[in-house]
Amino acid sequence: MSQARPSRGRRPGAPDTRAEVLAAARDSFAAKGFAGTTIRAVAAAAGVDPALVHHYFGSKDDLFLAALALPVDPREVLAPVVAQGPDGAGERLLRAFLSVWEDPEMQAPLLAVARSAIGPDGGRLVSQGFIPVVVGPVLGSLVRDRADVRVPLVASQVLGLILTRYVLRVPAMVAIPADDLVAQMGPVLQHYLTGDLD
Amino acid sequence: MSQARPSRGRRPGAPDTRAEVLAAARDSFAAKGFAGTTIRAVAAAAGVDPALVHHYFGSKDDLFLAALALPVDPREVLAPVVAQGPDGAGERLLRAFLSVWEDPEMQAPLLAVARSAIGPDGGRLVSQGFIPVVVGPVLGSLVRDRADVRVPLVASQVLGLILTRYVLRVPAMVAIPADDLVAQMGPVLQHYLTGDLD
Repeated sequence: MSQARPSRGRRPGAPDTRAEVLAAARDSFAAKGFAGTTIRAVAAAAGVDPALVHHYFGSKDDLFLAALALPVDPREVLAPVVAQGPDGAGERLLRAFLSVWEDPEMQAPLLAVARSAIGPDGGRLVSQGFIPVVVGPVLGSLVRDRADVRVPLVASQVLGLILTRYVLRVPAMVAIPADDLVAQMGPVLQHYLTGDLD
Repeated sequence: MSQARPSRGRRPGAPDTRAEVLAAARDSFAAKGFAGTTIRAVAAAAGVDPALVHHYFGSKDDLFLAALALPVDPREVLAPVVAQGPDGAGERLLRAFLSVWEDPEMQAPLLAVARSAIGPDGGRLVSQGFIPVVVGPVLGSLVRDRADVRVPLVASQVLGLILTRYVLRVPAMVAIPADDLVAQMGPVLQHYLTGDLD
């Protein structure tokens, strides 16, 4: 996401206009973060009308997720977790997470995003992109109080799981069957979501 | 730790012999991991007698920690945590951890090690170095059963904390006062150390 790209001229109707917009979006998110990126600026960089960006990608949230090239829309994966409310959400959250990450076809593209997230520009990608677009809205509707503390606590455990199980592949962590992990770590996420934090 | 270094000739008694041994040790741990490194091979690479390596650095564990250039010996920091036994160890572990990481002078060198640990060679550094030398022995004496599962679970939460609070500096995580963090995350570490995991 941080590579320099050649400037792009206006090529209305060219078959790769969508790809051009996406490349401009990646440049902008990488250089300016989520908050610093606007649909208007991405459109200008790609030499197209902002309406076309909306047409192709929808909202800025949608554009961000398209730029990340995730193999699934995390909002769709997490919607059923949220729909059933806070009770048992820790376990459901972990099951939804594992259903995606333990899928061999999804793991490679997810790993690419995870490596960006823990890399040099990762702080902004996580803090200004992934948390406000994905994690915040999902958890925000599950937690009844203290979202300012509960959201980063959940993020710390989930990122630690990604790091040890998929990125570093610590053998002892890789060896834990997914169902066992749900039993062991689900209560922790539940504690962070709804438990007594004092 | 992964930079190529010029070969070293035998320079007995040179004032930088200690530094030469340390450089050879860094090369070996980076290239071959902890298990693949021997005092004998490090001595040979530095052109000195193995006894001299032992004299300067002690055991292979000691040599590994010296090669990491940690600002403190984690075994000394964690000794009082272990000495008081499993009850309340989650909270004490977190306090000991924060006493080091929240110290501005220690944070910079710790961050350098953390960035290596989450980098391309990090899997081996963590799995074959830090966990067997530091985490395993400490937690191994705190947990009464299922160390194979409890150790990686604790590691996942502690690494997630390092990642979000110090490496990525997620603002919401940075904003949590250390004492609050002990109250919120201490029970999680205790759960992983001694709780019912089924």
